[in-house]
Amino acid sequence: MTALPVPSGTEMLLELLGRGIPADRLVVDRDVLSSISHDEAEWAAVGRAAVGLRARSEAEVSHAVKVCADLGVPVVTRGAGTGLSGGANATDGCLVLDVSRMDAVIEIDAENLMCVVQPGIVNNELKAKVAEHGLWYPPDPASAPWSTIGGNVATNAGGLCCLKYGVTRDYVLGLRAVVGGPAGYGTALAYGRKTNKGVAGYDMTSLMVGSEGTLGVVTEVTLRLRPALTGSPKTVVGSFRSLVDAGRAVAIVTKAGLTPSALELLDRYCLEAVEEWKHLGLEADSAAMLLARVDTNGDAGDDEARAIVACFEEAGAVWAAQSTDDAEAEALFEARRLVYPAVERLGPVLTEDIVVKRSLLPQMLAEVEVIARRHEVRIATIAHAGDGNLHPLILTPAGDDNARVAAQSAFEDLLDAAIALGGTVTGEHGVGLLKRGGMRRELDPNSLLMQRAVKDALDPLGIFNPGKVL
Amino acid sequence: MTALPVPSGTEMLLELLGRGIPADRLVVDRDVLSSISHDEAEWAAVGRAAVGLRARSEAEVSHAVKVCADLGVPVVTRGAGTGLSGGANATDGCLVLDVSRMDAVIEIDAENLMCVVQPGIVNNELKAKVAEHGLWYPPDPASAPWSTIGGNVATNAGGLCCLKYGVTRDYVLGLRAVVGGPAGYGTALAYGRKTNKGVAGYDMTSLMVGSEGTLGVVTEVTLRLRPALTGSPKTVVGSFRSLVDAGRAVAIVTKAGLTPSALELLDRYCLEAVEEWKHLGLEADSAAMLLARVDTNGDAGDDEARAIVACFEEAGAVWAAQSTDDAEAEALFEARRLVYPAVERLGPVLTEDIVVKRSLLPQMLAEVEVIARRHEVRIATIAHAGDGNLHPLILTPAGDDNARVAAQSAFEDLLDAAIALGGTVTGEHGVGLLKRGGMRRELDPNSLLMQRAVKDALDPLGIFNPGKVL
Repeated sequence: MTALPVPSGTEMLLELLGRGIPADRLVVDRDVLSSISHDEAEWAAVGRAAVGLRARSEAEVSHAVKVCADLGVPVVTRGAGTGLSGGANATDGCLVLDVSRMDAVIEIDAENLMCVVQPGIVNNELKAKVAEHGLWYPPDPASAPWSTIGGNVATNAGGLCCLKYGVTRDYVLGLRAVVGGPAGYGTALAYGRKTNKGVAGYDMTSLMVGSEGTLGVVTEVTLRLRPALTGSPKTVVGSFRSLVDAGRAVAIVTKAGLTPSALELLDRYCLEAVEEWKHLGLEADSAAMLLARVDTNGDAGDDEARAIVACFEEAGAVWAAQSTDDAEAEALFEARRLVYPAVERLGPVLTEDIVVKRSLLPQMLAEVEVIARRHEVRIATIAHAGDGNLHPLILTPAGDDNARVAAQSAFEDLLDAAIALGGTVTGEHGVGLLKRGGMRRELDPNSLLMQRAVKDALDPLGIFNPGKVL
Repeated sequence: MTALPVPSGTEMLLELLGRGIPADRLVVDRDVLSSISHDEAEWAAVGRAAVGLRARSEAEVSHAVKVCADLGVPVVTRGAGTGLSGGANATDGCLVLDVSRMDAVIEIDAENLMCVVQPGIVNNELKAKVAEHGLWYPPDPASAPWSTIGGNVATNAGGLCCLKYGVTRDYVLGLRAVVGGPAGYGTALAYGRKTNKGVAGYDMTSLMVGSEGTLGVVTEVTLRLRPALTGSPKTVVGSFRSLVDAGRAVAIVTKAGLTPSALELLDRYCLEAVEEWKHLGLEADSAAMLLARVDTNGDAGDDEARAIVACFEEAGAVWAAQSTDDAEAEALFEARRLVYPAVERLGPVLTEDIVVKRSLLPQMLAEVEVIARRHEVRIATIAHAGDGNLHPLILTPAGDDNARVAAQSAFEDLLDAAIALGGTVTGEHGVGLLKRGGMRRELDPNSLLMQRAVKDALDPLGIFNPGKVL
């Protein structure tokens, strides 16, 4: 730590934190503090944090929350900082509470298909650990190589396989958290259960999942697991003349009752961006590609793959086929994973995360094109299409202020278009800072009043990640 | 309606209700009122309701809640009254709000695998309606022929197929409710979404599911559906020398990563009770029977059934086999469904609903036997064994007060035994009145404080089903 002058007002905070926490956990260096004061939502506002804390234990979190409550200091919790909505962005004068070093696997219970972990463990590391026991943790956000389970819980992260296997909330049986309010700020408690079923009391666990650190600090998570998949997945690829045709193919797959384990859409801009960067040999000349994965074993899986090919053809695919080459199939999903970094190379990106009913995907994709033209912005669209979850990526040339303004207008128009179709402004990234306006336009105002009442009841001082979500 | 004298204090309630609700919806006849003042939890306390209302619309519910809030009258909502924990039992002076006539299917959206229904629709009727569209609503509590979706939502009902397909909460995307508190008593609002994914705001939907009418009155539910199953299920049956052997078989199935669509346990008492009543030709001479159903299609399903037979044999089954006769298989599941009424014929029944980790099933089953001996009561056990969810049914001879006291002691001992094994006091029946003590022993006291704060924030007058859950 560089011994830079500490901003006024933080001495007391440091002094009190130091009474229960070793000094080497504290961050006061402005550069380091800046680096942990935001997530990857490039365009969201970032405040000036007072102090950072790299907590190592629930006891340290508990002490910190108690101190912050005494001083009225906001607590902004973060994991790896890979969020895309600004949910982990610092507010002025806050404590940045980094729990990424609390990354232990506490228990893997292979007999009961569950595990208990600290929030800082990275998604893919957890996957690897449980795989050693023949188990599988399905939720697979694109950030899985970097994002933490705590962050995944905070945003109720999704990913590619949610269509068949659900989202983070579906896997959280229980958790421990340091809370405030009626239990007293700094109190560590347990919500939920360790059994496969249970209805004792209100579902506080689901309430915490997706609450972005606004109701307390998660310090431990009990996760449901599945048996590892056996057999090799089958990949079906389809190429389409237009985004709308691809959207129709997804609607047809859904209506046919087919549930592939992934059904991803990439438009031409995405394919080009990946191909220019990685030279994977993708055919980037179609308007859109659909990638489906089938993990059903045996002849039923073959039937499913064939049925998906037929759906793609019914929607007018230029071509559609089951990939017979495992390496090729893997390259296609690798391309999918590379879209976001590939597009980011081209300039600042504003990432959408809208969801519509799957039958409305063609309409929403048409809206995306209309909005891009209206604001003269380039929008590259990837989508967890099988869930109706689109990520239009709005691209801007670096340093172009007009383009930035246009992008922001397009961003809000996309939210409104999703709302107009009965959809939602965020499927898996969370509200954070970027979607607060959109969320207010989406939700029943009375529902917002009730949510605000829950927040006020559980955090009457309003110190847990203030200004986020609500 | 018989024109009996109306108890004092209810005139004003009737007068105000009548201003917004046709008189033919109101129930004042004491006998009729009594008949809708309790659920099927035979031993739970029942208060004396002031008035009943058979609501026909959200507007009527809204008017009633507003009136009750003005007068401080408790609102006890009910569907079919098939609950087993006393959650729908009247409190003194309450309005019994029967929503079973609000039973419309508002929308079946086959393209998007979802539907919108009123709370009064019966589970099996909903199943039949969506089946006409090639769709399936999986949650299948044993009460499915009678219980309503609203009641299923209130208790987060489970059933036989939850092991593979989840519980009610997993299917509720959103709902409408008449609430109180910050939104104003009588306000109808929407929680949740109509899309497959969504993280805009707190998960108020999951909070409402399982809250037993203590946070408002559900007036509409948006449910996720699945494509109808194709192919015929396979049934595997195993007969065991002891309950503990059967429990071991379940643990072995779980550990092997097998996920049958049902894995049910019936002990000798259950088999005898059904056989004596219905003469289905069951072999009631083994200590326990396990019934597994496999709905995976094709060769993978055959492999799964064979693997389950092998697990049963590994646990020392007297015999285990895949049923080759569809009629026989159906009779076995019919027997499972008949257990509760068959046992009820023998006298008053106190129904447990405990859950333990699946690896602890043998221990919990051994505990059940110890507790039965200790209190000299007869306990017939059925279990959704694949979920670790046991329903020990404590039998008493009618009119035997000593036996009744012994049964109640055994009931509490069973709860404590489940808690001691890290389990929960209720898996799918709800807390209601019967499990409140057990729940307080199970949950972290600080979690209870936070739950109480949520209740107080959302129902500051405390009129929604007071005394239930918390």
